[in-house]
Amino acid sequence: MSFFKGVMPYLVTPIDADGTIRTPVLARLCDDLIKAGVHGLTPLGSTGEYPYLNDEQRRRVVATTIEAAHGRVPVIPGVAALSTHDAIRQAKLYQGLRANGILLVLESYFPLNEAQVIDYFTSVASSIDIPVIIYTNPNFQRTNLSLKVLEQLSRHDNIVALKDASTNTGHLLTVARRCQDRLDIFAASSHIITSVMMIGGKGWLSGPACLAPRQSVKLYDLCIAGRWEEAARLQRDLWALNEAFAKFNLAACIKAGLALQGYEVGDPIAPQRGLASDERKIVAQVLESIARL
Amino acid sequence: MSFFKGVMPYLVTPIDADGTIRTPVLARLCDDLIKAGVHGLTPLGSTGEYPYLNDEQRRRVVATTIEAAHGRVPVIPGVAALSTHDAIRQAKLYQGLRANGILLVLESYFPLNEAQVIDYFTSVASSIDIPVIIYTNPNFQRTNLSLKVLEQLSRHDNIVALKDASTNTGHLLTVARRCQDRLDIFAASSHIITSVMMIGGKGWLSGPACLAPRQSVKLYDLCIAGRWEEAARLQRDLWALNEAFAKFNLAACIKAGLALQGYEVGDPIAPQRGLASDERKIVAQVLESIARL
Amino acid sequence: MSFFKGVMPYLVTPIDADGTIRTPVLARLCDDLIKAGVHGLTPLGSTGEYPYLNDEQRRRVVATTIEAAHGRVPVIPGVAALSTHDAIRQAKLYQGLRANGILLVLESYFPLNEAQVIDYFTSVASSIDIPVIIYTNPNFQRTNLSLKVLEQLSRHDNIVALKDASTNTGHLLTVARRCQDRLDIFAASSHIITSVMMIGGKGWLSGPACLAPRQSVKLYDLCIAGRWEEAARLQRDLWALNEAFAKFNLAACIKAGLALQGYEVGDPIAPQRGLASDERKIVAQVLESIARL
Amino acid sequence: MSFFKGVMPYLVTPIDADGTIRTPVLARLCDDLIKAGVHGLTPLGSTGEYPYLNDEQRRRVVATTIEAAHGRVPVIPGVAALSTHDAIRQAKLYQGLRANGILLVLESYFPLNEAQVIDYFTSVASSIDIPVIIYTNPNFQRTNLSLKVLEQLSRHDNIVALKDASTNTGHLLTVARRCQDRLDIFAASSHIITSVMMIGGKGWLSGPACLAPRQSVKLYDLCIAGRWEEAARLQRDLWALNEAFAKFNLAACIKAGLALQGYEVGDPIAPQRGLASDERKIVAQVLESIARL
Repeated sequence: MSFFKGVMPYLVTPIDADGTIRTPVLARLCDDLIKAGVHGLTPLGSTGEYPYLNDEQRRRVVATTIEAAHGRVPVIPGVAALSTHDAIRQAKLYQGLRANGILLVLESYFPLNEAQVIDYFTSVASSIDIPVIIYTNPNFQRTNLSLKVLEQLSRHDNIVALKDASTNTGHLLTVARRCQDRLDIFAASSHIITSVMMIGGKGWLSGPACLAPRQSVKLYDLCIAGRWEEAARLQRDLWALNEAFAKFNLAACIKAGLALQGYEVGDPIAPQRGLASDERKIVAQVLESIARL
Repeated sequence: MSFFKGVMPYLVTPIDADGTIRTPVLARLCDDLIKAGVHGLTPLGSTGEYPYLNDEQRRRVVATTIEAAHGRVPVIPGVAALSTHDAIRQAKLYQGLRANGILLVLESYFPLNEAQVIDYFTSVASSIDIPVIIYTNPNFQRTNLSLKVLEQLSRHDNIVALKDASTNTGHLLTVARRCQDRLDIFAASSHIITSVMMIGGKGWLSGPACLAPRQSVKLYDLCIAGRWEEAARLQRDLWALNEAFAKFNLAACIKAGLALQGYEVGDPIAPQRGLASDERKIVAQVLESIARL
Repeated sequence: MSFFKGVMPYLVTPIDADGTIRTPVLARLCDDLIKAGVHGLTPLGSTGEYPYLNDEQRRRVVATTIEAAHGRVPVIPGVAALSTHDAIRQAKLYQGLRANGILLVLESYFPLNEAQVIDYFTSVASSIDIPVIIYTNPNFQRTNLSLKVLEQLSRHDNIVALKDASTNTGHLLTVARRCQDRLDIFAASSHIITSVMMIGGKGWLSGPACLAPRQSVKLYDLCIAGRWEEAARLQRDLWALNEAFAKFNLAACIKAGLALQGYEVGDPIAPQRGLASDERKIVAQVLESIARL
Repeated sequence: MSFFKGVMPYLVTPIDADGTIRTPVLARLCDDLIKAGVHGLTPLGSTGEYPYLNDEQRRRVVATTIEAAHGRVPVIPGVAALSTHDAIRQAKLYQGLRANGILLVLESYFPLNEAQVIDYFTSVASSIDIPVIIYTNPNFQRTNLSLKVLEQLSRHDNIVALKDASTNTGHLLTVARRCQDRLDIFAASSHIITSVMMIGGKGWLSGPACLAPRQSVKLYDLCIAGRWEEAARLQRDLWALNEAFAKFNLAACIKAGLALQGYEVGDPIAPQRGLASDERKIVAQVLESIARL
């Protein structure tokens, strides 16, 4: 049995320049995404600029999301830390807020060996009662999760899924061959999602899904129905979104797109900046091109 | 219309310790691969240890392959050089031997700008009358082919296809969206081939196909028939081959596998060495596991 | 005129498993280092495991160091953040605690362009009245400081020095040729310090100096006296320390060495671990080998 | 006893667009460099574009250099190959031409383990009777020489020196501490040469020395005389050369500079190109700035 499935958008963090979370904007975005059919919500991912937020800001984002979801879909906030102690603190806090799971990231500074990596993930997973998706992103974390580590983590009762944000879908197939009966596989927007679904993936977590929830759900449904050629055609057209977002700061892109769609999410957190007007035009064109899909 | 399609194995170079090409072994391998249904043969790729061979050795490999193929399938030798002058010399030589196309690689030492990269490929392609597959491998070549370069090269009459040996299948989808009507896309064994076929790929060039020609052709046929789920299942099992070969020296692996299948291809060229006996056992197990597929 | 000069050890953070800072141990270490002749103290560097500490732990470390130094030498805590807002908050807090300067780091997650990098450093430097050493470490920060950025930052009144933790001393010579009249240059333990002093460096900030304060001061004095060949000989012998520490987790190494010297600094913060007993032996041997210098 | 010492310029390869070596230009350059006081000549390094040359071109370059040197200084051509067999062939050929030593490089394609690396170097060194300088350049060769490998190679009778082209001078100090009594250390232009001389280096091999032979010899003499502060001042001014050359294709830079000095060395080999006119101006300015030194 799978705990989670389908399209789970990474939420942006609507925020003022002074650091105040714009909770009404976030709540409306959550409500609209659920009405568009998404299967879960993941606050505090990269798209949510989690590394730029302090503890109190993070707490508000998670609480607002859970309240807005109101039990209609699972809410799975990101937990990311360098120290085990800090990760456990976050995980327990979000469980207390009634999160349905966590997306667990190991940040890194000094190199860790495999025993230390395993220690981190299992200590955090053992400290809570809700399921854990482990997340590996070689672009942002220095410590990669080896096959051996994944195999061992897949045997922990609370660790139920893996989200891999590399561009190497072949690596996911290798993981699937070794751990798929114990670990659900989720794609990221860096993958061709149809490919991941075809090798047995359960769904995907991605920032761009904020901007195209309806089309993303349609893609998911085509995959589930085994209508692979239609899925591949839709995927090909939706890929325009990935291409556009690979060019710019991810949070800036999605915030710009949401602003164009009427959500006042504000700029990314300084020293990041919002998109320039010519960049904004590219995002507008892409949104228009996928609106018909 | 596509010039090339299907499964095109990269041939190993059977060779003695003193540098003599074992032409009878190579000829027999070519014949057996063609009888197993492969759609083309590519001597002098990475698998063929081309960078370790001198001009005369390369010439013998190409001539032997063309003679053995005897027109049944196209033969597309690799042409790789640092200087434009040397690449043109090789290309003309192989055309003179009646090769059906070339696989063109730009080696690099000092960095080149985009104009210089385009200059290399177009100068070589213009010097011959047979079609060119351009080949980009970020693991071995320092100079990557940008989208802008690919777009421009795709407009050259003689440049008909791209083989990409990165692990980033999403990049191939981006190329396909931009150039697919002018540039056929071929996968490498670093990709999940089913994924590349689903996004419109025409086939694949790969070393491991030497060891599993029949299963590779079966996979190709399933893709062409749109039987995607069967293809995905076969792909998943065949992936064992890719996993094994990612661990060791590629040429050593394939030479070890062919030796197990009765081809006396010899060791890889020194200072490379043949596989150790425990490594050989892993290759044997994998070959056994895929024999039934 | 230079604001800072000489040997400024990066302090470890003595800490219990439950996260309590061992302030008496830290105070005694500070006092002993000052008595050994060091010219300044820098809490909250990499050696101090700053990324693993929360706000309150950081505050205690800085307050304890400043109190222990008691005005005898400058105290320059590290300020590191992703958001400008957070860095300004830290900088003002430490200024309020009477720090004599700050060591300013830009952490990074999403890529920043040069204008954004400059914005971060100048916004923080303008928010306080004490001098700023900017710190660039390509091993840990994704965003490198280009020559153009350094040149512009060197014109800010509060930005007085640069510490570079790459291994590329030639790059420091290039910076010196462009900015040395406006920016003092400090070496890291990844450099050959004698080389940096010879090209005009003002001193160095390093973790290993915690373990060899007397020998480090002696090396500094030889450089200042122009006794270069004696300096080079001493440097060569002291390099054993750098070699040993390149092998292991830096904080674990220095904590192990300090424990051997009688400071109960505890283990590095989990999931990091203390050195294994055979690793500890290597550290003990090195400490013995340099004790006589 | 050291076999080689001092300033040994890497020679460019003067060549026509059709591939003819301009032997009179090369001979005149060799003669002028010797008259300016250099201590040796090294044809077929990176600066000499060796990877772009065929066997016959290489032979002509080496023969011309040896003839021009006429025994006044040692000539040490580069030998670089992927296969042991090819490297031995080159080494014997140059020994037959009366080269005084070789500079031995291991090119790489497929990864090699340490035993294979050692096998390559010792097989080549054992095949000839002249001394070998081993050369490691992490920018161009995939296979780095570990300390363990260097230590073992340093025990071979014919292997007398190491040239390291990384930017990490600290690594050279580590090598010196382990192998200096058996392996002379030479710097590259990526190092601050004064630093390498201070830690015991015997000299340097560098392309830019072609353009500033007199000043390079002066720098060497100051180091040998222990006049370190004067050396550091001269080094600082000469560094302008390194800064300029880091910006462009190395061969193109040095060829442009030599053309400005009256040597008709031609353009770099295509698809490389000569410097653009604005780039040529930068080289001219730098040459002027160092002419007075």
